[in-house]
Amino acid sequence: MGNSYGKIFKLTTFGESHGGSIGGIIDGCPSGVKIDLVFIQDQLDRRRPGQSKVVSERNELDKVEILSGIFNGVSTGTPIGFIIKNNDQRAKDYSNLEQAFRPSHADFTYSKKYGNRDFRGGGRSSARETACRVVAGSVAQLILNKIGVEIFAYVSSVGSLRLNKSYNNLDLNSIDDNIVRCPDVDLSKSMIKLIEDIKKSGDTIGGVISCVAKGLPIGIGEPVFDKLHAEIGKGMLSINAVKAFKLGFENQDISSSLGSQVNDIIIDKTGKTKTNFSGGIQGGISNGNDIYCEISFKPVSTLMINQESINLNGDKIILKAKGRHDSCVVPRAVPIVEAMMALTILDHYLISKSNNI
Amino acid sequence: MGNSYGKIFKLTTFGESHGGSIGGIIDGCPSGVKIDLVFIQDQLDRRRPGQSKVVSERNELDKVEILSGIFNGVSTGTPIGFIIKNNDQRAKDYSNLEQAFRPSHADFTYSKKYGNRDFRGGGRSSARETACRVVAGSVAQLILNKIGVEIFAYVSSVGSLRLNKSYNNLDLNSIDDNIVRCPDVDLSKSMIKLIEDIKKSGDTIGGVISCVAKGLPIGIGEPVFDKLHAEIGKGMLSINAVKAFKLGFENQDISSSLGSQVNDIIIDKTGKTKTNFSGGIQGGISNGNDIYCEISFKPVSTLMINQESINLNGDKIILKAKGRHDSCVVPRAVPIVEAMMALTILDHYLISKSNNI
Amino acid sequence: MGNSYGKIFKLTTFGESHGGSIGGIIDGCPSGVKIDLVFIQDQLDRRRPGQSKVVSERNELDKVEILSGIFNGVSTGTPIGFIIKNNDQRAKDYSNLEQAFRPSHADFTYSKKYGNRDFRGGGRSSARETACRVVAGSVAQLILNKIGVEIFAYVSSVGSLRLNKSYNNLDLNSIDDNIVRCPDVDLSKSMIKLIEDIKKSGDTIGGVISCVAKGLPIGIGEPVFDKLHAEIGKGMLSINAVKAFKLGFENQDISSSLGSQVNDIIIDKTGKTKTNFSGGIQGGISNGNDIYCEISFKPVSTLMINQESINLNGDKIILKAKGRHDSCVVPRAVPIVEAMMALTILDHYLISKSNNI
Amino acid sequence: MGNSYGKIFKLTTFGESHGGSIGGIIDGCPSGVKIDLVFIQDQLDRRRPGQSKVVSERNELDKVEILSGIFNGVSTGTPIGFIIKNNDQRAKDYSNLEQAFRPSHADFTYSKKYGNRDFRGGGRSSARETACRVVAGSVAQLILNKIGVEIFAYVSSVGSLRLNKSYNNLDLNSIDDNIVRCPDVDLSKSMIKLIEDIKKSGDTIGGVISCVAKGLPIGIGEPVFDKLHAEIGKGMLSINAVKAFKLGFENQDISSSLGSQVNDIIIDKTGKTKTNFSGGIQGGISNGNDIYCEISFKPVSTLMINQESINLNGDKIILKAKGRHDSCVVPRAVPIVEAMMALTILDHYLISKSNNI
Repeated sequence: MGNSYGKIFKLTTFGESHGGSIGGIIDGCPSGVKIDLVFIQDQLDRRRPGQSKVVSERNELDKVEILSGIFNGVSTGTPIGFIIKNNDQRAKDYSNLEQAFRPSHADFTYSKKYGNRDFRGGGRSSARETACRVVAGSVAQLILNKIGVEIFAYVSSVGSLRLNKSYNNLDLNSIDDNIVRCPDVDLSKSMIKLIEDIKKSGDTIGGVISCVAKGLPIGIGEPVFDKLHAEIGKGMLSINAVKAFKLGFENQDISSSLGSQVNDIIIDKTGKTKTNFSGGIQGGISNGNDIYCEISFKPVSTLMINQESINLNGDKIILKAKGRHDSCVVPRAVPIVEAMMALTILDHYLISKSNNI
Repeated sequence: MGNSYGKIFKLTTFGESHGGSIGGIIDGCPSGVKIDLVFIQDQLDRRRPGQSKVVSERNELDKVEILSGIFNGVSTGTPIGFIIKNNDQRAKDYSNLEQAFRPSHADFTYSKKYGNRDFRGGGRSSARETACRVVAGSVAQLILNKIGVEIFAYVSSVGSLRLNKSYNNLDLNSIDDNIVRCPDVDLSKSMIKLIEDIKKSGDTIGGVISCVAKGLPIGIGEPVFDKLHAEIGKGMLSINAVKAFKLGFENQDISSSLGSQVNDIIIDKTGKTKTNFSGGIQGGISNGNDIYCEISFKPVSTLMINQESINLNGDKIILKAKGRHDSCVVPRAVPIVEAMMALTILDHYLISKSNNI
Repeated sequence: MGNSYGKIFKLTTFGESHGGSIGGIIDGCPSGVKIDLVFIQDQLDRRRPGQSKVVSERNELDKVEILSGIFNGVSTGTPIGFIIKNNDQRAKDYSNLEQAFRPSHADFTYSKKYGNRDFRGGGRSSARETACRVVAGSVAQLILNKIGVEIFAYVSSVGSLRLNKSYNNLDLNSIDDNIVRCPDVDLSKSMIKLIEDIKKSGDTIGGVISCVAKGLPIGIGEPVFDKLHAEIGKGMLSINAVKAFKLGFENQDISSSLGSQVNDIIIDKTGKTKTNFSGGIQGGISNGNDIYCEISFKPVSTLMINQESINLNGDKIILKAKGRHDSCVVPRAVPIVEAMMALTILDHYLISKSNNI
Repeated sequence: MGNSYGKIFKLTTFGESHGGSIGGIIDGCPSGVKIDLVFIQDQLDRRRPGQSKVVSERNELDKVEILSGIFNGVSTGTPIGFIIKNNDQRAKDYSNLEQAFRPSHADFTYSKKYGNRDFRGGGRSSARETACRVVAGSVAQLILNKIGVEIFAYVSSVGSLRLNKSYNNLDLNSIDDNIVRCPDVDLSKSMIKLIEDIKKSGDTIGGVISCVAKGLPIGIGEPVFDKLHAEIGKGMLSINAVKAFKLGFENQDISSSLGSQVNDIIIDKTGKTKTNFSGGIQGGISNGNDIYCEISFKPVSTLMINQESINLNGDKIILKAKGRHDSCVVPRAVPIVEAMMALTILDHYLISKSNNI
């Protein structure tokens, strides 16, 4: 259960971090969409380990193979099946985990829930699964581009280094100019330095990604339970290591705000507002302004520092972590955040087509 | 679309703030549950307007009438239909809204999405709808109580007044001892004073509710897309005025945390951890520790202050707000937060029964 | 569970045959639809007991009250809540059933499934629930009419009296000219006579309803698991007493057919076919020809004849049936069949709007 | 859309008949189930073309490769991904179909629905897709076996050759003793002869498969819309070429039945009934007796006889069929029917675990 996302444009994924391959099926992709495989692979490359000195050195090629649903380069409306082979899994790195539970990992909960756990790496709980999200999210982005929607995600915090500028004052086309994916040159340098220092110490650190979607038409999102930001929030919170989600209120504390400060005054018939504390959504429905949200990632749980824990028998142990891991997950998580935004708003865009006859 | 919540224990609601009644259907309620109508009505009373000086003076009795699904006081497994009559709707208060869009309200987005809007009050977008959530959430709480789960929600911030204590150091049975529902006597007085001051000024202010669920068994929640906290987050973000959700990390900033500070060390076979920065969930699955989360509410959009806006023709207008509204929504939102927590974790508890044969 | 129907245009129902009321919620109704309450009530009147000498004499007015979702006579896109009061329930008629299981009824299975059964009449298993389907189905028909779709259902068999004409040779506007709803005057008289004879004997008899939908555009229905006829079949099989469903093959046995006899030759670009053994659907997708299907109803289980059974203790008993029941269900089931056809094809029509961008 | 089946135990499939591979994902498989790959492959072998002289000579090995979800031979509760390579696709056989619509095929409807059609063979509409159902259905059967459920399907009609015996008087373990899969030696010989004759003539013929599920506990199935037989009916009607479904009423016409003839008298506390016209289901819920249903298949649409049709321009053409096809689909469809029965009742078995707490 729980391996599908979306109602109309629906992704289902499978695969463990240390099996032969991972993959997925996209159902509900409209027909007639030119599938740009280079773009999909580019997005995968932005997520893949081994891409730079601030990420895990696991070396995965992450080459996607499309198995169905595309004919002569164009979607046919039938399901798009795909797989990504695991190349550099080193299951032996994890032999010490057969008997141990890593702190703040899913080892314990999976073991208790299922009884029978694939202990090689995170198995199904590994963030490796998010590669499949990036494949499907990229397809969604290709479709959204056709209707004029553009999505940008960028690193806005690493540790206490915080980008205090509005996205309106940033060059969103410069996000990939540095390996930490923060569109502020000076701050990006500090962030890279901080991650390198943390890495040397064997520790890990949290961060924040900001995400903007421009060009979404008015009227997308369903009221009451399936409010657009509730769905986006769910999508983001389902990403490994995400612990908090915030809509709008850029550089503004929510609780201490006064209504008179943060009400967004509509200035013309297009629905454009003076300010955008609402993050582009009112009553759960897009209002034609930019969708803006912030996603907070906890520090990665796997440390290169000895930790206390227990083994399967409940005995106390000292866990000596091995394997290859990220010290800060946000640089690689940028395309994952974009993917979840794309999957969610495309799905709701397609749903909204049934609102009127 | 979007008026249903849950997969197994499923609530569907209907009704506008100024129609004759609102109501809902609970499908998937297990049979054999004693339905304590007094508890349900008590929860409704905690949410209803007119209950104290810090909330809206609209005077609704909010008496629930159960129409089906209960026989001799016990659930039969068939759907529980219910209605709540609207008593004190004063549609004429809203006659000025037929032509105007209130800032940061859903008026504009509903108009654009549906073309045809019931402009009396918020119509469907009004938080009045949440009364139905409280009915269903109360039924869910009755069932959860039978399996040993207790849910507590309380106000932890109003404006910049912030309760900086852990819930472990609070008396969670004293939440209702004051009208603002903050289990710290001194702080509650300051909060009440602040809301009264804000009300006098015609303005509104934000706040935060913290929610704790104790006693949830290990293994609840589905990995990958339907992670338990992603589902709880969606439920909370679907509540009117909620703009942010955070799991765990009580009194701790997420981004600046180090892994070595916030990893939760398991100390025994029961899965109990030294700390609980994870908020009781790892890999999307409950780990047997308390579920803890924080929900941030923006200030209510309706002000008793003149505001600029536009009318249906796109002309600029000055909007003179009328009607009766809350200056700060969190005191009344406490039972709504409890309801969404109960609906979500009960649903996943029921789903988890199919994980093993 | 199981009390909802549809994915986009979704009906959820509640209510027992002998409670205060039954009702439902329609979610996903497009906005801007003029809701013709007279048509809805007419359809309910075609289903209601007490309408003629060939149906149950239970006297229910079956007046529907709409509680939400309509403003100034037009749908607003928000959920349409409705109730129908039970007027003539006589629970005491059923006091003998507290301890007994009626043969071929749901008494035994509900008791075993839920433990706690409302034994007054069929409770939730009563066909009284279908009144709610007729309400929602009528709304669906109103929308389908706007896009040029017309639905006709009629009685094509009662017992071994079988209408061996094609619907192409019948006047489908004459269906309600007789109380048995068979558009063949002579056969209708024989059917009425047969039902009256069966009624006198205390026995019951089966029948068949044929259903035609004209004007459905090409391309409706989703391939593989959600084929249009699989969905229509499910809808029809969910009606009380329905035991079989057949698509197309009017007046033709399926098993003994040769491909060369029943292949439908396309004769022009519109997709029109020489014959219509396919019943308007190929590969699960509408082909622009009439949708045609047959639905078989078993004889009603409640007899006015003494029957053997067992009681709650498992002792053998003789069951003396009381209550007021139909001797043949098909005359009243005609609007129910129309409703399920309308609900299913409208839902798929709305889904199909997302197939292309 | 439409490529998923089931709510808890959920199968999603992908793949075209003439692409590189087909495959699927099973989500919701309980953990701890020993996965007998030999049984799965045996079921695939019963479905595969080229197995005998009465089926298509396309030579597919249909070897399934499991990609995830199984560790040391046992299910882990995570999704089971699998693929089946296409070995013997000969797309050139279909080059004549780029411009033509085959009568009673899905060519026309797919073209109109999607605009962009993979014209090689049936593409997605080909019955090749059912191999994936057999994989998942076999896994479901392995689980059902653990709870004492056994499923048998067999050919009960080919053309007008009809097996008029009750399954109670047949040796259900002898089904595979002949290539047509009819557990009556004499009739099976006539059926084989008939199919061979039809094949020689270039024509095709219909047939019926009967299916029995023994050992299903009482209480499975959800009332009202998701009645167990409505769900089974949907599953069966979603199989290629199936046009009708009937529950119970073995060797008995439904319409002409009298209630006094076909009411099933309960004879003891276990719910056992004297007769089983109900086919093991009352009110949509299993009653502990055998589930019995009949599924009617139309003759295959592809003939080895010239047929009239139109091409993409709407011009009349004579279609000379090529390719390798079945003259009668029922012998190979037996494991597919078993698969859909297994998928449906297992899913409802798992759902039913949430009915009581």
